Amino acid sequence: MRRISKTARKALRKLLGPRFLEDEAGRLSYAYDASGLTFVPEAVALPETTEEVSRILALSYEEEFPVIPRGAGTATTGGPLASEGGLVLALSRMDRILEINPEDLVVVVEPGVVNARLKEALAVRGLFYPPDPASLSFSTIGGNVATCAGGPKGLKYGVTRDYVLGVEAVLPGGEVLPLGTRTLKGVMGYDLTRLLVGSEGTLAVLTKITLKVLPLPPARRTLLAAFSSEEAALSGMQAVLEGGGLPAAAEFLDKTALSALDYPQKEARGILLFEFDGTEAGVAEEVSRARETLATRALLLKEASGEEAEALWELRRGLSPALKRLGSRRTADDVVLPRSRLPRFLSEAKARARKYGLTLTCFGHAGDGNLHVNILFQPEEEARARALREEILHLVLELSGTLSGEHGVGLTRRAWLPAEIPARALALMQGLKHLFDPKGLLNPGKIF
Amino acid sequence: MRRISKTARKALRKLLGPRFLEDEAGRLSYAYDASGLTFVPEAVALPETTEEVSRILALSYEEEFPVIPRGAGTATTGGPLASEGGLVLALSRMDRILEINPEDLVVVVEPGVVNARLKEALAVRGLFYPPDPASLSFSTIGGNVATCAGGPKGLKYGVTRDYVLGVEAVLPGGEVLPLGTRTLKGVMGYDLTRLLVGSEGTLAVLTKITLKVLPLPPARRTLLAAFSSEEAALSGMQAVLEGGGLPAAAEFLDKTALSALDYPQKEARGILLFEFDGTEAGVAEEVSRARETLATRALLLKEASGEEAEALWELRRGLSPALKRLGSRRTADDVVLPRSRLPRFLSEAKARARKYGLTLTCFGHAGDGNLHVNILFQPEEEARARALREEILHLVLELSGTLSGEHGVGLTRRAWLPAEIPARALALMQGLKHLFDPKGLLNPGKIF
Repeated sequence: MRRISKTARKALRKLLGPRFLEDEAGRLSYAYDASGLTFVPEAVALPETTEEVSRILALSYEEEFPVIPRGAGTATTGGPLASEGGLVLALSRMDRILEINPEDLVVVVEPGVVNARLKEALAVRGLFYPPDPASLSFSTIGGNVATCAGGPKGLKYGVTRDYVLGVEAVLPGGEVLPLGTRTLKGVMGYDLTRLLVGSEGTLAVLTKITLKVLPLPPARRTLLAAFSSEEAALSGMQAVLEGGGLPAAAEFLDKTALSALDYPQKEARGILLFEFDGTEAGVAEEVSRARETLATRALLLKEASGEEAEALWELRRGLSPALKRLGSRRTADDVVLPRSRLPRFLSEAKARARKYGLTLTCFGHAGDGNLHVNILFQPEEEARARALREEILHLVLELSGTLSGEHGVGLTRRAWLPAEIPARALALMQGLKHLFDPKGLLNPGKIF
Repeated sequence: MRRISKTARKALRKLLGPRFLEDEAGRLSYAYDASGLTFVPEAVALPETTEEVSRILALSYEEEFPVIPRGAGTATTGGPLASEGGLVLALSRMDRILEINPEDLVVVVEPGVVNARLKEALAVRGLFYPPDPASLSFSTIGGNVATCAGGPKGLKYGVTRDYVLGVEAVLPGGEVLPLGTRTLKGVMGYDLTRLLVGSEGTLAVLTKITLKVLPLPPARRTLLAAFSSEEAALSGMQAVLEGGGLPAAAEFLDKTALSALDYPQKEARGILLFEFDGTEAGVAEEVSRARETLATRALLLKEASGEEAEALWELRRGLSPALKRLGSRRTADDVVLPRSRLPRFLSEAKARARKYGLTLTCFGHAGDGNLHVNILFQPEEEARARALREEILHLVLELSGTLSGEHGVGLTRRAWLPAEIPARALALMQGLKHLFDPKGLLNPGKIF
C-alpha cells in the first residue's frame, strides 16, 4: 500500500476542486467516528456524482492508495477511519432522494441520505422505512447498508438487509455495476446485493441504493412497564412475546441504565418499552393483551401515544450519552443471544462484573435478543475492564450468541472474528475480498 | 469432469448399502423435475447424516465426479437434474425437525423436511413459517432455500431469504461448516449464509437449516373479488394496496386462467384473491377497508375464512394442472415487474400473444409484482411459442423487471442470465463459484 502520490493529488485537485481536502482542519474533521479512535487521513474527497466516485476508484487502482468510504461517522467500530492511511471518501454530499414510488413500494436514494430525513419524506407519502438505529438523526443510508444497521424495530420488521433490493456499486478500479433488482423479488444468479450489505465498505462503494418500503401503519402505541427486578422484566417480555402478536419493538433497560437516567421511580429495577403498530383496532387489541399479561408482574404500566410516546423513546435514545455519568470511559458491544438465554446471560455477566468490581449495563433490543453491553470504568481500571469484556464475549459465544448484531467488525472487533467464525469460513471471506478488491485498496485493515 | 469411477462406486456401496442406487429403476426415479426435462443420473445416493454427505463430497473431490443435490424435484428449471452426468444426492431422507424453539422463535431442520409438514408442526405450537410456494405439500425446505422460494405471502412476509438465519453447509471436498447464527441478528464478517440462499446447490450442500419463525397470527380472512376486466382487477389491487394496510397475499387470475378453471361466473374477466392476517380486530378493519375500496369496482366480493377460504386457495393452487386443458405444452416463466408496470406488461404481452395466435396466461403473486407467465401451445406451434417467449422476456427487462422471482435459473433460464446480469457481475459470480467449488463438481452446468 502506498501513500497518495503527487500525481494522484494533482488529479484529485483537478477533479474535485475545493471538494478535495488536504489541509489539517479538513482532514481532522474526518479522523473520528464514535469508537473513540483517531486516524487522520492523508486527504478527504467529497464526491457529488457516481462518475466522480468511479474516477476516484480508478485513480486509487492505478496509484495504489487506500480509499475509505464514509457516511456520517456514527460507527462505533473504527470502520470508517483511515487506519492504514489513504483517502477518506466522504459520501455525505451524495444525499439526494432520487425517487419515492408509492405504487411500487420502492425508493431510490444516494448513500448520503440521512435515515431520519428519508423517514420524514416517506411519512408524508404514507410510507415507512423501518430500520431505526439509535443514530437515525445523523447516520446515512449508505452507512446503514454498509453495517446492516438494525434498531428497536428489528423485532417485527427485520434489519437493513431485509430492505435492500438493489444497489449501484462502484468496484475497485472504477467500474460502475448495477446489482439486484427494483422488484420485490428476484433470484437471477448469486445474491451479490445482500453480500454487499454489511460488508463495511470493503468490497465496493455504493452510489445508489434501491430500498423496499412499507405502507405506514395507521396506528402506533407505546407501553412502558416497570418491574421490581431485571429478571421480572425479562420474563415479562417473554410472556408478552409468547402471548401471540408481535410488537414492533421490545426494549429493555437494566437497573444501571435506570440509575444513569435518574429514573424517578426508585423501586424500578428494570423497564420494558414496547411499541405496537398496525391498524387502530389491531393495536388496541395487542396493547390490551400485553397489559393483561403484565398486570400482576409489573410495578407500573403506562400507555402513551404521539408526543408523550416520543418522550419515552427519547429517554431510551438518551441513555447512551447519560451513561457518561457512571464512568469516564466505556466499552461498547452489541451482542445477540437466543432470546431464551437472555436471563442467564444477564445474571452471569453481572456476576462477573461484581467479581471485577466494575459497573456493567446491558440494555437495548431485548425483543430480538440484541443487547448493548457497556462496561463503565475510569482510566486506571482499563486492564480490568478489558479482562471483563473478554469473559463476557466468551460467555456470549458459549450461549450460542453472536458478538455483533448491528455494529459490525471494523477495527474494534477484528481480533474477535476468529473466535466466532470458523477458519474455513474466514478463508472464504478473504477469498471474496480478494475477488472484489484484488489489490486490497478498499477500506484496508477492516473486518480481517 | 469424469464419470463415477469403479473405486467411487465401491466406496459408495460400502458407505450407503441399499441407499446407493445403481439400477435403472432407481436412477429413473431421480431423472425428472417439473421442467419436463429428463437426465438419467449415473447413480443416486440417499444419505441420512451430515457425516455421510461429507464423505460423499470428499469422494467426489478425490474421484472428480459431479454431485447434484436434490430435494423433492419440484423445480421448474432442471436445477436438480444430472445434465452433465454424476451422482444425484437426494436429501429426502434427512427429514428431521431437530428443534422447535418458541422462546427463541427459531427452528432447526434437516433439508428434506417438507414445507407443509414444518408448517403443521409449527401451527400446533402457535408458530408460523411464512414462505408458501405452490409446491408446499411436496417441496422441501432444502430445495426452498436452494431456490429462495417465495409464494403468495411474499407480499407481507418476504421470501425464504428473509427467514434463513444459519446453515450447516458441506463444501466440495467434504468440510462441514457452520455458517450464520441462531440469533435474529448477526453481522460478524461477510454474509455467507444469504449467499448460499438461492445458489441452487452450486456452492455447498446444506445439511441443517436454522430458520426464524413468527407467532401464528390469531386471525386470517380471505376476500375474493371478481372484475369485468383484467385492467379493473389490477387497478383494484393497486387501490387496496395504496389504501394502507398490507394483506398477507394479493393474487391475480387473468381471464385465460378463469376459463381453464371453468370459473362459474362467466362475466368475470379477472379475479383477485386477498388474504389478510393479524389480530381479529385488525383483520376485520383491513377487510372492511378493502371491501369499501372495491365496492364500486368489483362485480362480486366474497369473504371467507376457515375451510371455505381454503377452498378458494385450492382453486388458485389447482390452476397450474388445469392449464393442461388449453394446450398440451407450455412455457413456464415467473417474471417480476415493478407493481406499477403490471397493467402495461399485461396488455403488451397479450397483444404479442394475439400477434402470434397463441394462448397466454398471466397469474399469480401480483401483489409483489411476481407473475407466472405461461404460453400454452401444441407441439407444432413450438417455434412460435419460443419467439413469443423471447419477446415477453425482453419486455420484462425493458420494464425494469427481473426474469425470475422464485424459480431460479437452473438449466432453462441459463441462456437468459447475460440478458439481465451485467458481464462484470457474471464474472464475479463465476469467481465465487470457483472459490467455493474449484473443481466445478457441485451441480455443474447450472446457473452459468
